[in-house]
This record gives sequence, C-alpha cells and structure tokens, in this order.
Amino acid sequence: MNDTNQNDWEVIRFDGDLTSLEETEVAEEFPLTVMINGEEFATMVCSPSNLESLVIGFLAAEGVIRSFDEISSQSIDREQGFAYIELTRSFSTNQQDYSKRFIGSCCGKSRQFYFQSDVKTAKTIRNNLSISANQCYKLMRELQERSEHFKRTGGVHNAALCTVEELLFMCSDIGRHNALDKVYGSILQERIPLKDKLIVFSGRISSEVLLKISKIGVGIIISKSAPTNLALELATDLGITIAGFVRGNRMTVFTNAHRISEANNKNN
Amino acid sequence: MNDTNQNDWEVIRFDGDLTSLEETEVAEEFPLTVMINGEEFATMVCSPSNLESLVIGFLAAEGVIRSFDEISSQSIDREQGFAYIELTRSFSTNQQDYSKRFIGSCCGKSRQFYFQSDVKTAKTIRNNLSISANQCYKLMRELQERSEHFKRTGGVHNAALCTVEELLFMCSDIGRHNALDKVYGSILQERIPLKDKLIVFSGRISSEVLLKISKIGVGIIISKSAPTNLALELATDLGITIAGFVRGNRMTVFTNAHRISEANNKNN
Repeated sequence: MNDTNQNDWEVIRFDGDLTSLEETEVAEEFPLTVMINGEEFATMVCSPSNLESLVIGFLAAEGVIRSFDEISSQSIDREQGFAYIELTRSFSTNQQDYSKRFIGSCCGKSRQFYFQSDVKTAKTIRNNLSISANQCYKLMRELQERSEHFKRTGGVHNAALCTVEELLFMCSDIGRHNALDKVYGSILQERIPLKDKLIVFSGRISSEVLLKISKIGVGIIISKSAPTNLALELATDLGITIAGFVRGNRMTVFTNAHRISEANNKNN
Repeated sequence: MNDTNQNDWEVIRFDGDLTSLEETEVAEEFPLTVMINGEEFATMVCSPSNLESLVIGFLAAEGVIRSFDEISSQSIDREQGFAYIELTRSFSTNQQDYSKRFIGSCCGKSRQFYFQSDVKTAKTIRNNLSISANQCYKLMRELQERSEHFKRTGGVHNAALCTVEELLFMCSDIGRHNALDKVYGSILQERIPLKDKLIVFSGRISSEVLLKISKIGVGIIISKSAPTNLALELATDLGITIAGFVRGNRMTVFTNAHRISEANNKNN
C-alpha cells in the first residue's frame, strides 16, 4: 500500500574527516490542502502516499465525518496539492468547533501561513561561521550526554545553542518545535548575539524546523536525524547549512557545505 | 536550565515472557494556553520547563513579536496552565494572518478542541481481544522489516493494522499522525471490522495519538516508543492497552494489562 516518496539529493558524507560526494534519498514533504464542499478546511504536510485514506482518516479523526458514507465524492489533485471532498450534507468550516487554532507538541502549518507570516520573518543567513567535522561530532556527543537524564522517559527532544567550541545551553521538550522555541525565547530574553552560534538538535529537520532556524538567525543546524526535501530546498535558498545523521564520527552535509571547514577546503 | 518533567507510573516489564512489576518515569505532557492582551491566542502541549522562554520563542516564531521589548509583561499560571502576555501594542487574534488553522506533519490540538470535538468521538473500548508478549514482539519485528525500505531516508513513521497473528497493512508518513490517519481512512474505506484488530506503531504515544486510537476503536496499541503521562491517563479511562518500548524480546505494558495474556495469568 505504500508508494516510494523519496527524492535524491547530492550530499557530502563525512566519516571522521574523510569526505565523499554521494547521492542520497530524502523523505518528501508534501503540502495537501483539504477543501470541503468548496471551502478550504485545512492544509497538512504529509508523505504523498495513500492520500485518499489520509484525508478520510483525518476528517474522521477531526470529527467531521463518522463514516465513509458521509462522503459523496473525493478527488485528489496531486499536481496542485489539493483534496476536494464533497459531503452528503452542508458543512461550514467556520463552525465554532473547527475555528479554534490548534498547536501540538510538534506542529506544522499551512502553506498559506508560510506565505503570510513566515516570509516576513525568514531571513537569508549571510554569516560565514565555519566549523570542523570533529567539532560537529563533539557538540552532538555533548547534547547526548546532557540529555541522558531525559532519556529515561524516552520521550523528549533536545535543542542547544552552541559556539563551535561548546554547548552553551540546552532545552528539552516532548515537542521538537517546543524545544527549539525554548532556545529561541532564551536568545531573545538574554539578547544573545548569534554571529558565532549554531544549533544542535535531536529531531528531524522539516521545513518548519528549517524556517524556525532561519528566523532565529543561525546559519548552521546539526542534527542526529534526517532533513526532508522541502527543508533542503528552503535551506539552499536561505543560506543555511544542514548537517544530518550526526552519529559518532559520521555525518552527512546536505546544504551550504562551505561552512564545514573540511568540505570547504576540498569543494569550494 | 532544565527541570525534571517526569511522573512515575506502575508498569509490567516483559523480558521474553518473564514479567516484573516496576515503577517507571514517563514524560509529562503539559497543555499551556497563551493569552495575548487578555485574548486566547493558542494552546500548545509541551514539557513544563522553560515556559517563559517557550512562550517568547513561540510568539517570535509565529511573527507576533520581533524582539523581547515588545512584551510589556508576562506571567505564567502553572496551576491552571495559562501564560498571560501583554504586548506594548494592541493585538487582535482575529487578524487574518493568525486565523488560519494549521496542521503539521505531527500536530496536536488544544484542550478546548478535546472537549468540543473529541469527547463526541472518543469511545471506551470494551472488547477483550487478548495477545501474548511473543505476538507483540513478532508484530513489531514485522513492522520494522516492512519499513526497511523507508528507513533509507530516516524520516518516516509507520502504523499498521494487525490481527494478533499478522500485520494486515502498513502506512508510512513523515508525520506520526498522518501515518495513523492513513490507517484510519483505510479502515473506513474498506469497512474493516475491528473486534480482533490492534495497531502497531513506530512513534511516541501522546494524548492525541491515544485519542485517535480510541476513535478508530481498537483496544491495543503497541509501539517501539514511549507514552506520555496524559496518554496513560486517557488510556486508563478509555480502556486501551498500551505496550511501549517494544524492542526485540522486551516491552513495557503501561495500561490495561489484562489484554496481554501472560500479565493476565499472573495479575488479574
């Protein structure tokens, strides 16, 4: 029942300080806007497989439908990223029940929201902070050591503000976004200058995480997890360096490798 | 900068088919409603540490503020779960920019939303499907084998509908919730009876995941990850069995252990 939802991306793989240029597959992030009876209901970001089931399950989970019979027609426009649902009854997206905005422990947002609000605050990063692969490995180790305490419950993400030399402070949360928001908030509260800073992160780098990094205003994010294709496209545009899969003495540099000193020596 | 956000929970730990009664710490899920100039702006679910930084970072990420100076006062009512923010300017939460609902790859929702919509659809599970620990291990192994293909990109979650004997179908998505919604949608489309079914899941079991399981109408969820305290409370109320940390031949049963045959023999 599953399609393949991958894209290829050219990366620099690091093993210690050895580098190799490779192609790798990345997970696709697909924005899908759900229209009910001609009205926009919601936009979700998903993997583009089983889209019909996704929409039906989503509407049932939201309490819009209780059975499949309540849907009189469904069509998916993959090209434009729209799902058109007709219900057997009238429906208003303005009902009180559905007008509450809701934000979870690791929430995303709609394309509309990107355009309206994010474009105002996302900024291209021009600083030329440089870091070595070994410093990346060391910072990730530090993040993991400090999070030992939280590992016991198995349910939290960590984000830390660092210089290339050391981890300055770390925030934890059950939500990836919350962990980053806590770091962002501390930066604003303490008015911390960011020129020489980067962020080390435990979670997946989705487009929304990447936009947050851009708003915070740092040029490098290193993560033990993977980025999505949309995050990679945004990072390329916004001048942000993504090092993913940072584990032990290995990592994969996906974008703007010029900030990684070894890559810079060989490839720029 | 981190508080401890754990709660203790009594569990049955399985090692093969050996069981032991233990206390374990679980991550806390804390709903925090943000009020701006006296008006409700949003509710997020978070870990209750660094709440001031969280709120400031969140407002900056949403484009509500650009600097800390725009906040004239902030107070947190931990007891009630409210953050009161006063801005130096007027602000309406009804502005077009903020009125869009947004749903991400792994989104949650507000307490308000629970009460309004979820209570209508969440149901107490009364069925008495029983499964052995060995069947749990086997189903999780099957989920992981089938997801090998997706592992390459490192960025997806998997959910599968199963009988106690076998995995019926699996859906994958970059979002935990989407993977479950795809399974839910397929169940509705194919009108699959659920009496003898359970769900195997790769992701963390938050309150929202648990509510979704209840709406789908299955009584057992097994996951390789951890549940949160709120999910455990809901699962207790709704009669759902949670087996977490299912890895190799080990797992931890958190709630309604009577559906696990070995636990049933010894403890009920």
